[in-house]
Amino acid sequence: MRYALTEQQQARQAEFRDFVASHVDPHAAAWERAQALPSEIITMMAGRGYLGATLPTGYAGQAWDVVTFGQLNEAFGRSSSSLTSVLTVQAMVAMAVLKWGARHQKETWLPRLASGEVIAAFALTEPDAGSDLNALTTEFTRRPGSGTLVVNGRKRWITCAQIAGVFLVFGKLDEQPLACLIPRSTPGVTIDPIRELMGFRAAGLATLSLVNVEVPSENIVAKPGFALSHVMPVGLQYGRISTACSALGLLRGCFEETVVYASERKVDGHPLGDIGMIRRLIARMGTDLAAGNLLCHNACRTEDEHAPEAFENALAAKYFTSQAAVRAASDAVQVRGAVGCHESSPTSRYYGSAKIMEIIEGTTQVHEDLLGKIYLGQRAMLRR
Amino acid sequence: MRYALTEQQQARQAEFRDFVASHVDPHAAAWERAQALPSEIITMMAGRGYLGATLPTGYAGQAWDVVTFGQLNEAFGRSSSSLTSVLTVQAMVAMAVLKWGARHQKETWLPRLASGEVIAAFALTEPDAGSDLNALTTEFTRRPGSGTLVVNGRKRWITCAQIAGVFLVFGKLDEQPLACLIPRSTPGVTIDPIRELMGFRAAGLATLSLVNVEVPSENIVAKPGFALSHVMPVGLQYGRISTACSALGLLRGCFEETVVYASERKVDGHPLGDIGMIRRLIARMGTDLAAGNLLCHNACRTEDEHAPEAFENALAAKYFTSQAAVRAASDAVQVRGAVGCHESSPTSRYYGSAKIMEIIEGTTQVHEDLLGKIYLGQRAMLRR
Amino acid sequence: MRYALTEQQQARQAEFRDFVASHVDPHAAAWERAQALPSEIITMMAGRGYLGATLPTGYAGQAWDVVTFGQLNEAFGRSSSSLTSVLTVQAMVAMAVLKWGARHQKETWLPRLASGEVIAAFALTEPDAGSDLNALTTEFTRRPGSGTLVVNGRKRWITCAQIAGVFLVFGKLDEQPLACLIPRSTPGVTIDPIRELMGFRAAGLATLSLVNVEVPSENIVAKPGFALSHVMPVGLQYGRISTACSALGLLRGCFEETVVYASERKVDGHPLGDIGMIRRLIARMGTDLAAGNLLCHNACRTEDEHAPEAFENALAAKYFTSQAAVRAASDAVQVRGAVGCHESSPTSRYYGSAKIMEIIEGTTQVHEDLLGKIYLGQRAMLRR
Amino acid sequence: MRYALTEQQQARQAEFRDFVASHVDPHAAAWERAQALPSEIITMMAGRGYLGATLPTGYAGQAWDVVTFGQLNEAFGRSSSSLTSVLTVQAMVAMAVLKWGARHQKETWLPRLASGEVIAAFALTEPDAGSDLNALTTEFTRRPGSGTLVVNGRKRWITCAQIAGVFLVFGKLDEQPLACLIPRSTPGVTIDPIRELMGFRAAGLATLSLVNVEVPSENIVAKPGFALSHVMPVGLQYGRISTACSALGLLRGCFEETVVYASERKVDGHPLGDIGMIRRLIARMGTDLAAGNLLCHNACRTEDEHAPEAFENALAAKYFTSQAAVRAASDAVQVRGAVGCHESSPTSRYYGSAKIMEIIEGTTQVHEDLLGKIYLGQRAMLRR
Repeated sequence: MRYALTEQQQARQAEFRDFVASHVDPHAAAWERAQALPSEIITMMAGRGYLGATLPTGYAGQAWDVVTFGQLNEAFGRSSSSLTSVLTVQAMVAMAVLKWGARHQKETWLPRLASGEVIAAFALTEPDAGSDLNALTTEFTRRPGSGTLVVNGRKRWITCAQIAGVFLVFGKLDEQPLACLIPRSTPGVTIDPIRELMGFRAAGLATLSLVNVEVPSENIVAKPGFALSHVMPVGLQYGRISTACSALGLLRGCFEETVVYASERKVDGHPLGDIGMIRRLIARMGTDLAAGNLLCHNACRTEDEHAPEAFENALAAKYFTSQAAVRAASDAVQVRGAVGCHESSPTSRYYGSAKIMEIIEGTTQVHEDLLGKIYLGQRAMLRR
Repeated sequence: MRYALTEQQQARQAEFRDFVASHVDPHAAAWERAQALPSEIITMMAGRGYLGATLPTGYAGQAWDVVTFGQLNEAFGRSSSSLTSVLTVQAMVAMAVLKWGARHQKETWLPRLASGEVIAAFALTEPDAGSDLNALTTEFTRRPGSGTLVVNGRKRWITCAQIAGVFLVFGKLDEQPLACLIPRSTPGVTIDPIRELMGFRAAGLATLSLVNVEVPSENIVAKPGFALSHVMPVGLQYGRISTACSALGLLRGCFEETVVYASERKVDGHPLGDIGMIRRLIARMGTDLAAGNLLCHNACRTEDEHAPEAFENALAAKYFTSQAAVRAASDAVQVRGAVGCHESSPTSRYYGSAKIMEIIEGTTQVHEDLLGKIYLGQRAMLRR
Repeated sequence: MRYALTEQQQARQAEFRDFVASHVDPHAAAWERAQALPSEIITMMAGRGYLGATLPTGYAGQAWDVVTFGQLNEAFGRSSSSLTSVLTVQAMVAMAVLKWGARHQKETWLPRLASGEVIAAFALTEPDAGSDLNALTTEFTRRPGSGTLVVNGRKRWITCAQIAGVFLVFGKLDEQPLACLIPRSTPGVTIDPIRELMGFRAAGLATLSLVNVEVPSENIVAKPGFALSHVMPVGLQYGRISTACSALGLLRGCFEETVVYASERKVDGHPLGDIGMIRRLIARMGTDLAAGNLLCHNACRTEDEHAPEAFENALAAKYFTSQAAVRAASDAVQVRGAVGCHESSPTSRYYGSAKIMEIIEGTTQVHEDLLGKIYLGQRAMLRR
Repeated sequence: MRYALTEQQQARQAEFRDFVASHVDPHAAAWERAQALPSEIITMMAGRGYLGATLPTGYAGQAWDVVTFGQLNEAFGRSSSSLTSVLTVQAMVAMAVLKWGARHQKETWLPRLASGEVIAAFALTEPDAGSDLNALTTEFTRRPGSGTLVVNGRKRWITCAQIAGVFLVFGKLDEQPLACLIPRSTPGVTIDPIRELMGFRAAGLATLSLVNVEVPSENIVAKPGFALSHVMPVGLQYGRISTACSALGLLRGCFEETVVYASERKVDGHPLGDIGMIRRLIARMGTDLAAGNLLCHNACRTEDEHAPEAFENALAAKYFTSQAAVRAASDAVQVRGAVGCHESSPTSRYYGSAKIMEIIEGTTQVHEDLLGKIYLGQRAMLRR
């Protein structure tokens, strides 16, 4: 894969990996145990520009291409899926605002997101509706005679909501899908942390309650009705790319940890890696890693090129890497045995987190449905 | 399967399930979080005779057949793999002592094990040797001119060691494999709890250090040299049967929780179970459950009959149910999505525990090696 | 499994296996190549009573229980899926007529089916409707003023149609589902053999064209309208049981052939079975065989008992064994390598036939849909 | 993937696909039935330069890059694995001779291979040794006082041997591995066709017997001893690349045929593709196709660049695509049901051929062993 990266991309990849090795690896297990991320690490990431990776320099971002953004997510995913989720949701909100927000929204929020002054969260999922925008029950109403909206609703499983300062909330106004920026400090906003997940424990998930929350209508992102067709897709596309690369990092972690262990652990005087059944698992992991790497790079590259297949490619990448990560985590634990089930081995963290990669940003089943539909739609391009 | 059980077995099955529904289900998540089992539940189980299920009445046991023991383990496995492990290790030690112990050992220990006065642990695995008895480094030496043995060694991943009062410790004396009962209170015995596992968190695993521990040689179970050929196999056979049935219970839990959820959860006004992809997962779980059920019953029944195929059947049952449990737990989480990842859903507990079922009492790979060897050894029975 | 069979069942099992070893094994490959079964083998089977296995003695049948019928199908499935299909379709038609036919139909047809004088075929599937009885287009009309029906329609993929003397044809009369016996010799009946299948090549599949075929209305089986609710289910249940056991036989064949080969083939002076990756495949095959064996026996036994779960059990058995047969055939070929792809190795025959087991008598997907629905319907029986 | 191809590569890809659609698709089933390729099609391929695709123009080749060679193999693999095998073995021998042959060997053979005047076969595998060069028993001896070698041995499963005019035969001379060109017309050479394979039936496999065959020692390719270290690896690398791309073509065939069928076949008035379980299969096939495509391109590109990872990449590509082809063929048959099992549907041909892709040019197990070893060897490159 090295070939596919420019020298600059390679240099940044190395930098990301160094950062993670120094500042994430030693603490990732403790963060999961504490079920929280310390603000220091987020500050450090912000200091490196990671929170505004894909934002233009005019908004204090790095203006990195999506391939580089993918490398960033992979490097963090190698160590902590939870911490990577900050990159995910920050990009989801920032890119949706960049693409469809009003100038004043961009000027207000983007520099603060890029600098890490504010963490954003993407408040789409509801307890009953899942991520089906048409079924959302969060309701925006206009206060007559004023530019004020009143919001009522409940959002659940909102990643990073525990630490977020602003939410991109999806709901309905006059039966039209709406996206709106709501600062955490607005009266009526309540955050209930969700703890005791089986993985992804430091990702700061929370339930968000909105009771008679008043926001100025200028906080609406894009016109009413564009939330479903324009705003959400941008966010979800970055969510899928980030998650695909994060799962790829996790898969790489499983692969590397297994290679190291199987090289060093001796059984009857021989390295574990001499055993055919172990080699088989490593061969599968390594090939999945190679394939996942190419699929992720392909998704990022086509996104950089605004190619029409970028959507399909991101789906395929996320679908493949999240499932491969689950397989790899299971095998990585299995190769280590009991040792691999303990938090002192990253494999135990991988095991819980990988499964969650199959659920967030569209479940495997949603991906199968979407990809199936897309592929069937290509029937006309086939000659016979 | 109902057919295969006698009326008495069915009545006990119902009793076990009632007990679990009343006393285990409501607390299983909290115990995992606390990483400990309260002594009350163990006292209650002992009060019902569950801790001496397979011991003869002469030693205060219930003299239940192995089929009933299997039902007991399945009922508990449905709710808490951790709690079921108490049944596992108690039976492993008790049955090894019953079969190969001296009369005084049986009289001393079996009634106390049956009554739950003492919990036992099976101290085989070592940090470097795994469960390979030939590679054990725990060393027994005879103090010259006395009936005293001195033991030095380290045991790891010992289930229930945190609460055990006696250990059946495997090691070597004069290069011969030895099994010996060592009370926890013996000077030189140290227990270091292992916490922060990815599942099975309340099972009380610990590292056991033995530093110049002195035990009377009358604590040796069977003659020196018989540990490998006689004592260990009895323990492991009960370990496999218990774990196979525990994993079957977990699989049943996944199946039932998924059926309930898919019946009640509505998407677009229709139950989730109307979706073909969900039905497919349920069909697979249900068929695996039926097959696992038959395999476990078959293993227990042939053990009751002391049939020569009992060993092979227990391996096949454990091999099948532990893997099916992993598949089912993954699917059960997937059907629920984010909800299924939270401790409020038993599926999140199942997810971590199921994988551990694939590791304890012989990994899947060890089972493949043993079963492969057994099946190859049947070549002579085939006609061509 | 031996335990589960009575002495008589065991004796018959041995007889079936001897018959197959002597009369089927040596020729099965040649029959596939010739894409036809010689009449001699069918005559021999009839002479042993195999074609009327489950028919009462009053109709010249053997009155064997379904467990014995299952053993018969397994023994033949071990060697030739194609030949086993004669047992399948003969039983499907015979049992449907036995259960729902008129006395004169039974007296006319059952002794001739039992004696092998006539082979029957179950003519359900149509080119466009598949096996969906509601979508059938085969049309029965009454010739006014006479007891004669006129039939027009097309049936496809009809197993054994090339050699059948009578067809149980499903269609519609006045919009009601109808089942009717139509002798092959009736004018207007045309049989077009289907050749060049990827397996199951000797099973005599054909397309059946019915053009203005006249049959007396007394050939209708059960009342009009009962075809869907009564006649078809009996046939399909026997079809599933036969196919499940046939697939189990195929799985046994894969297992045994692999054990033999891995024991005898040397690589670098060691038997292939010393290699862990080979053992793994054998362990999986053997465990699948054990599970499939129990599921099939369970299905047969509950059918013998007319237990309500017999339907579910037959579905589960067919669903499991057909898929396990596909896995096993793939692995059995893989273990042999190129040798396993040649007709001189039964594995090459298994490979093509196993996949067809996943399609006939209800595809895997149909089974998933039905089983999923059945399991979801059991929700009320679960306590929570 | 379009991006990754130059305009010229794209143009050639289109040409290859046109050729296959016109000249291969209509006949591929008939060739399988006949178990032979007509000489006309090979003449046509030769006329287009396909048989010397990667040879330099100086030897009448096309000097196409390996990426283009991969496209060629994929296009043919889409339709006929058997015919593609001609490309495979021609390239294996031609490239081995190009790289390590003497000038006179190149001048004698390469233009004839490029023009299709002669078809070559790679005679490595032996009945007992498989492809293990160290275990080969084919023996070369020097006739004293002359430049003549006498060869005795047997080769089996030699692809295209039925039509080959020259064989690159591997064996031993004085215990050293040797590769030697032996024309088919040499006295003592006998070809026994292997018929009745379960797929790949037109690929012209044969057993090659060499009895006191005399060849001039100038036919030795490279020095004695270099056969294992130099000659064979070049051939096998091209064999793997060709087979990986051929399997990718087969996978593409499965995908496209399924998309077409699921779009057009109606069930209850709705296209089959509306069913979730069908979409799932299509999603998996399509994602595997995307991943396989990238892996194959990566393997070809690194081979073009003589990059050190080209070996690993070819292994990964062949390992992945051959297994994905097996999955896809199984699913493609399943989606069509009985229709898919008949030779009138290419899926039936795919089903048999795909499995053979997992066996030829190194089985899946050999790939797992090699890849596992390679990945383990990269341990030093990992930081921790």
